[in-house]
Amino acid sequence: MNSRFFTFVGGNLGIWKVVSTETLIGDPLPEVSRLDIVSGSKIHPDLHAGWVLRGITSNERYVVGEEKSELLAKQQCLGRPEATCAALIPIRKNAEWWVLTQDERRFILEENSKHIKIGLRYLPAIARRLHHCRDLSENEPFDFLTWFEFAPAHHAEFNGLVAELRATEEWKYVAREIDIRLVRE
Amino acid sequence: MNSRFFTFVGGNLGIWKVVSTETLIGDPLPEVSRLDIVSGSKIHPDLHAGWVLRGITSNERYVVGEEKSELLAKQQCLGRPEATCAALIPIRKNAEWWVLTQDERRFILEENSKHIKIGLRYLPAIARRLHHCRDLSENEPFDFLTWFEFAPAHHAEFNGLVAELRATEEWKYVAREIDIRLVRE
Repeated sequence: MNSRFFTFVGGNLGIWKVVSTETLIGDPLPEVSRLDIVSGSKIHPDLHAGWVLRGITSNERYVVGEEKSELLAKQQCLGRPEATCAALIPIRKNAEWWVLTQDERRFILEENSKHIKIGLRYLPAIARRLHHCRDLSENEPFDFLTWFEFAPAHHAEFNGLVAELRATEEWKYVAREIDIRLVRE
Repeated sequence: MNSRFFTFVGGNLGIWKVVSTETLIGDPLPEVSRLDIVSGSKIHPDLHAGWVLRGITSNERYVVGEEKSELLAKQQCLGRPEATCAALIPIRKNAEWWVLTQDERRFILEENSKHIKIGLRYLPAIARRLHHCRDLSENEPFDFLTWFEFAPAHHAEFNGLVAELRATEEWKYVAREIDIRLVRE
């Protein structure tokens, strides 16, 4: 099965141990000790989950031709043996963002905020998979779940990446953001 | 409830009577006599449905600034008393379409195929609501469900609209399309 659908289960099970949970803006999530990432939407019914977040990988919405080639050339797979650090960052953008047209959103995201360019600078050290939630149903708690994996040696670089992004114009449209750091055990 | 989620139930219930079902490309759907449009995803369990299609309205993916103003100025609501004719056109695009980047898709859709411009010419006669399915789950049968409503006097115009769109470059990426015509009773 090559599924596009992933379920992130925060609870007391899974190979990823939660190291910290920081709520940057908006409502927090219950604190949990472990994260299980399930391919598909079937989760074990008696799992003691603190929270369950679902997302689906999709076509790219903003990347244009040259950026795609550069991304494809540099990006790494998830599951590299040395990448024992991870972060799950669920984000919700505000209503102002979603009423913008496609070109207005692209302008803020890239021409102004350099989101794609910033991300490219941290490749290949940091692997990333973006999951969309907004259109799964009418009432998802977040719009995006981004999952990052990197080696312990690249910890400071990862902090640089998220700090750069949080300082952009685009981040003024972020209404909820939680930064969950994990290590593989 | 101002829900973005809609379920189209083809069966033997609902105010919309099916007049014709034409499969243009790809697998057909079972023939049904009536269509019920349900806001949300709860459908009555003993409903004799031939098929159930689900979609969610979302942010616009291709429309740019000026086009949005023109759309907002001209477009009409669904449910106009005189609009007793309708069409439901479920479409699936092929894998080639979905690997294109956002700018490549926009180029084919509008700069080349004039999809938005063609649609604007048929306003305000024809009201339209687009529902996205692709990211609801990993295995939806269609990518889009478009629902159109118009008065009987605009029947020929509606046929013109779909004929124009089907002759475009964009439609070469359509892998499945069914055209279901209905009248309100």
